[in-house]
Amino acid sequence: MSVHTGGAPDGPVLEHLDEAECLQLISPGGIGRIVYMGRYGLTVLPVNYKLHAGAIMFRTSQDSPTGEDLQTGIAHAEYSVAFEIDEIDPVRREGWSVLIHGPAHQMTTDDERAAVEDSGVVPWPGGEKEHAIRITPNRITGRRLRQR
Amino acid sequence: MSVHTGGAPDGPVLEHLDEAECLQLISPGGIGRIVYMGRYGLTVLPVNYKLHAGAIMFRTSQDSPTGEDLQTGIAHAEYSVAFEIDEIDPVRREGWSVLIHGPAHQMTTDDERAAVEDSGVVPWPGGEKEHAIRITPNRITGRRLRQR
Repeated sequence: MSVHTGGAPDGPVLEHLDEAECLQLISPGGIGRIVYMGRYGLTVLPVNYKLHAGAIMFRTSQDSPTGEDLQTGIAHAEYSVAFEIDEIDPVRREGWSVLIHGPAHQMTTDDERAAVEDSGVVPWPGGEKEHAIRITPNRITGRRLRQR
Repeated sequence: MSVHTGGAPDGPVLEHLDEAECLQLISPGGIGRIVYMGRYGLTVLPVNYKLHAGAIMFRTSQDSPTGEDLQTGIAHAEYSVAFEIDEIDPVRREGWSVLIHGPAHQMTTDDERAAVEDSGVVPWPGGEKEHAIRITPNRITGRRLRQR
């Protein structure tokens, strides 16, 4: 990690995290945010994700806004999205954030569906029809803010 | 609010929130995420914000990634960004998210700097040189996921 030196002497320190540190921080899975340019402009939606075989996986109901948009956007072609995960402590004013860029891919084949089941990720809004999405990172960046 | 009916009978309900509900949810301020198309593609960064006179306000250190990008992007012209706020309970699988779209504006005049002070918003990473940014919403959308 590299320490950011621009802050005030008594302020928190901003550190850049390397890829391994980022992957470790996001490995438990949880809440992340899929970010993409959708029909209504920049779209940001929280989803429940797992990290599986180095990729982000989540499931979304087909008739949710995410499902509709993703269906339109990536049903026939992969396209690049961002995925953000953070954990912030507002009292201590500390925390970290990780930003992933990569192509979003809809998991549709038998092997892919098996990988989705294997990942253990569950969609929150109920629904029979759903999309399972995988984001394969091609860039992982992160930063941590901590008190001295 | 409108109730989304696509889910399984026993799954959580996805509700669309109207603008007044969204503004009420985000009125305490806290952590939100600025989202914009930056030099390195889609960029998402958590910041500490306040809602002031109907607008999102936050401060960022000039030499942070956000500060650099925003300086490049909006120093001489306003441009449209997104701002996302959410609150998710992973145990109950309930929560809400609000997405704001609007132009980002750098607060530089005396009156604007006074409004920044008035808002009470503080930047977390220390630093003498900083940007104060205001996002004036032109579209506010939100949704809530709750158990039946």
